[in-house]
Amino acid sequence: MNRIAYQGRSITVQVEPVELPNGRRVELDVVRHPGASAVVPFESDDVVLLIRQFRHCADGMIWEVPAGKLDGDTPEVCAKKELEEEAGRRAGRLERLGSVWTTPGFTDEVIHLFAAHDLSEVPPRPEDDEIIEVVPMPLSKALDMVWSGELRDAKSALALIHAARRSGRLG
Amino acid sequence: MNRIAYQGRSITVQVEPVELPNGRRVELDVVRHPGASAVVPFESDDVVLLIRQFRHCADGMIWEVPAGKLDGDTPEVCAKKELEEEAGRRAGRLERLGSVWTTPGFTDEVIHLFAAHDLSEVPPRPEDDEIIEVVPMPLSKALDMVWSGELRDAKSALALIHAARRSGRLG
Repeated sequence: MNRIAYQGRSITVQVEPVELPNGRRVELDVVRHPGASAVVPFESDDVVLLIRQFRHCADGMIWEVPAGKLDGDTPEVCAKKELEEEAGRRAGRLERLGSVWTTPGFTDEVIHLFAAHDLSEVPPRPEDDEIIEVVPMPLSKALDMVWSGELRDAKSALALIHAARRSGRLG
Repeated sequence: MNRIAYQGRSITVQVEPVELPNGRRVELDVVRHPGASAVVPFESDDVVLLIRQFRHCADGMIWEVPAGKLDGDTPEVCAKKELEEEAGRRAGRLERLGSVWTTPGFTDEVIHLFAAHDLSEVPPRPEDDEIIEVVPMPLSKALDMVWSGELRDAKSALALIHAARRSGRLG
């Protein structure tokens, strides 16, 4: 039976007995996660909004796109909420780009990727522990930051690459 | 002071007091991770080796590239070891593609991305709990699997995209 090994403020670790396809039985640590959405906001065809966000795990500010946990919402509703809260934009149209496993060796976290179009301004509502700066950026420059390693957040890099490809702007 | 909240077989969770840039003090759960390497093995200019691997967190077999935890090695040494263990290939030349944060909201895991060239065969040595199938694949087809969502592992998708771009085969 699954056993909760640690229940924290933001993560839950379970120890889970697993029978592998070869019949071997093992116990695995799993960070159980509700899933998340990440969204590339398009201010125009060529300009996106990136965020610079403080991440303790990364020891400082890093480049990302707006994103957050599902908390019971659908991926679409979550993407729209995070876009409003973190970037201060309401999406007229949301484009689904796919979804990714962030690190399937130890968590079931799936992040759903979106592009948001036809944006209008709303007041941003960052959470108390979110330190966020919103930075408009030409899509081509955001991609250059992915290629150079300046933008190293996996979900954000993949969302930007997928969005660029869909709009014929990759490579 | 940092406090170990859970020490498992494969993960360590710490509760860490953090002072945010705005002066607010919070306690954060962090999955502390030694880092990892992932490597795209090039059998030829146009064919890579993917692996199909059982991942309990993903509830089945998923597509990835060879990868594993650092365990005290440098990223380069780790990439070479995982390539030998999981794919049965020795790298004549390793090309560094960058590194990514897998999910910086709750872990400090960084994965270093490589391409491996000039391969020679060695006996694969999968670990007991690794259920792995090695599958040669045209690079263009591997990329199509990223775009279609059939390959959804973030590190593997990014490694393939970076490797394709470096060799002029993206888009």
